[in-house]
Amino acid sequence: MQIGICGLGTVGSGAFNLLAGNRDEIYRRTAVEIRVVQVGCRRDHPDCDLSATNVTRDIFEVVNNPEVDIVLELIGGTDDALKLVLAAVRNGKHVVTANKALIAEHGSEIFSAAAGMGVQLRYEAAIAGGIPVVKAVREGLAANRIEWIAGIINGTSNYILTEMARPGSNLDFADVLKEAQNLGYAEADPTFDVEGIDAAHKLTILSSIAFGVPLRFDDIYTEGISAITAGDISYAGELGYAIRHLGITRRVGDAVELRVHPCLVPQDQMLARVNGVMNAVMAGSDQAGPTMYYGAGAGSGPTASAVIADVIDIIRSDGIHNVANLGFLPEAIQSKPVLNIEEVTGSAYLRMVVADKAGVMAKISTILSQHGISIEALMQKETHGEDAHVVIITNEVLEKSLNAAIRELSSLEESMAEVARIRIADL
Amino acid sequence: MQIGICGLGTVGSGAFNLLAGNRDEIYRRTAVEIRVVQVGCRRDHPDCDLSATNVTRDIFEVVNNPEVDIVLELIGGTDDALKLVLAAVRNGKHVVTANKALIAEHGSEIFSAAAGMGVQLRYEAAIAGGIPVVKAVREGLAANRIEWIAGIINGTSNYILTEMARPGSNLDFADVLKEAQNLGYAEADPTFDVEGIDAAHKLTILSSIAFGVPLRFDDIYTEGISAITAGDISYAGELGYAIRHLGITRRVGDAVELRVHPCLVPQDQMLARVNGVMNAVMAGSDQAGPTMYYGAGAGSGPTASAVIADVIDIIRSDGIHNVANLGFLPEAIQSKPVLNIEEVTGSAYLRMVVADKAGVMAKISTILSQHGISIEALMQKETHGEDAHVVIITNEVLEKSLNAAIRELSSLEESMAEVARIRIADL
Repeated sequence: MQIGICGLGTVGSGAFNLLAGNRDEIYRRTAVEIRVVQVGCRRDHPDCDLSATNVTRDIFEVVNNPEVDIVLELIGGTDDALKLVLAAVRNGKHVVTANKALIAEHGSEIFSAAAGMGVQLRYEAAIAGGIPVVKAVREGLAANRIEWIAGIINGTSNYILTEMARPGSNLDFADVLKEAQNLGYAEADPTFDVEGIDAAHKLTILSSIAFGVPLRFDDIYTEGISAITAGDISYAGELGYAIRHLGITRRVGDAVELRVHPCLVPQDQMLARVNGVMNAVMAGSDQAGPTMYYGAGAGSGPTASAVIADVIDIIRSDGIHNVANLGFLPEAIQSKPVLNIEEVTGSAYLRMVVADKAGVMAKISTILSQHGISIEALMQKETHGEDAHVVIITNEVLEKSLNAAIRELSSLEESMAEVARIRIADL
Repeated sequence: MQIGICGLGTVGSGAFNLLAGNRDEIYRRTAVEIRVVQVGCRRDHPDCDLSATNVTRDIFEVVNNPEVDIVLELIGGTDDALKLVLAAVRNGKHVVTANKALIAEHGSEIFSAAAGMGVQLRYEAAIAGGIPVVKAVREGLAANRIEWIAGIINGTSNYILTEMARPGSNLDFADVLKEAQNLGYAEADPTFDVEGIDAAHKLTILSSIAFGVPLRFDDIYTEGISAITAGDISYAGELGYAIRHLGITRRVGDAVELRVHPCLVPQDQMLARVNGVMNAVMAGSDQAGPTMYYGAGAGSGPTASAVIADVIDIIRSDGIHNVANLGFLPEAIQSKPVLNIEEVTGSAYLRMVVADKAGVMAKISTILSQHGISIEALMQKETHGEDAHVVIITNEVLEKSLNAAIRELSSLEESMAEVARIRIADL
């Protein structure tokens, strides 16, 4: 089987070196030689010995190379990547990609082109790196009606939240972000990771393969972790919760929830135990119950592991596309409305900074009660100066009602800052 | 696609009902109707509506029924099951089984018969119930050189260990076993589960699909959990460990370790957080690093989920057997010696009951030191009466040396009981 690699960054170099290093082990599984016949990259990679490899600076040469059977699209981004993948497909080549943005935003067009040409389009590496979660959901759980998926699918955010929670750390988001950037766990511009866009791309795909709904990246509700404070981490801990940045998608009646935001997760749950840059995806389904898939969500080796697993799948399937791109056949994909976040029901953590005056608790309770919200737990914390922090765990309530209450609470004369809200995971 | 079900117990009834209940969702994934054309069972199952089903009391009728394309072998045991599966294969039928004992003990014969007939033989449900771990290892990690696997693969044992560790429980093995039997989590004769035989069957298969070695059930080292005391659970907890019953297989030089026994697992590790009847399998591999697969390891729904996922795989593969039975092609299976447990290296927890006399600690330390064993941690606990419990964590040492030391320690005149040893997991 002849491979062309486009892009020789972290993932491309990992795939190139994996094919060399694990040649024998892969041959034992397939009895097929996998040869890299061309690499297209802007510059060579210091970790790769390219002396015996046909290298081109023009990535489009790779997809036009008649010797190439499978193209690995590992350049990232969406503009060139889309052109490249469509060109490869039109040339009758199978494509393996690690590009979540590409699949989340242009998957429908690409899948339909691939189906038209009878080639395979695989993307295991797009979600949760080395964890074979696309395979688990599309194939391992294929006998189930999947009810929900909740995942820690961005290592940078999880690293930051874990570090903020390290005993004695007491660091705020900005400090830990700087530390993560120094360690190479966060980009110079961290927006994609810490504001949840990367996670939203992945969740878009997970939702489609779980429920057989179209890819709906534009409808996803996305909230990052930059507003989480050291105080939130500590108060949540006292109440028995860890804070995690989750992607959650769930069937609700005839609609689906599709949302990425920070969550309080009960400390005894597996997802609360996922630390550092690790990822985990939990799926709830009617027969298998909850199952979880855990591992490294990024990095050269783990992502290359997923890319080459897809190559091996193509080899083992004799070129026949057995599993539909979204797990469900194109004609069975059913559009369902995505619930507006205001229509989502759940309990929440509220943190208020209030002037420490008599009667303020009475005002807070009254407002909550007027909106039909009851208090499940309450903590009042003295801070330096005259302010106090009030932390409340609400009952399960429609987000629209809670928003109205939060607006009123924020406009209380005793309120010294916007009321912070973190949703509580109900898994 | 036409199915024949042999066995209508917990798993068979679950598979039957799953096919009825999730017919539409499965059709959306495959565009193939799955029809149960015959059920062979000793007696009907109260949860199954068999009014429209062809039921026979002779299971061999099912494998001889020319209408049946895929046989589900869900009768358990090894004698009849082997005959049944071989007959089905000879009749050109694909087989899906949930039978770990059958695969661990007779897999080679069955796989070779299936290959000869060009039919598929699938067994996802044989390991860890609803968790698609066979698929993860054989396919999801196929680009890796897998280095080790460690798993909690028996729910009964894990339930008992979890209950013994419940705060304030202080119950011994026998008490919790009785409770588990009342709840239906343990059989009337619990030997298979609590003595590790069931886990050994599963680990045998996991070792083969991880490393491409032959199935070697007879060479596995197996130790159960019946000797674990409430004291061990509590001392381990004080030292920062949970006790879990693990199956561990690992490459060591040109050999493999293959062992099932209780382990101390550091409390901050994911496997230590797997509670109750849940299962989890962790795999260490050269590219993906550690990945873990978690979920329900038994029960009607979860096991049926795995059985029918195999059926869907057969449908999706157009009858072509793409993935070798053990992940590696038959001609690539390489025999490796299984390390005798005495040749395994690791640290251990020792618990001694000693007469509380001056000089006893000196004797203990001397014996350990004479065998080249150093003490990493030590606790002495007063008990009622004159005895004391001495708990020691050793450094990493060859088990043969530790055994010699344990024999000497046990024969000390101050020693009031056999020295207990629990190995420490090094993952």
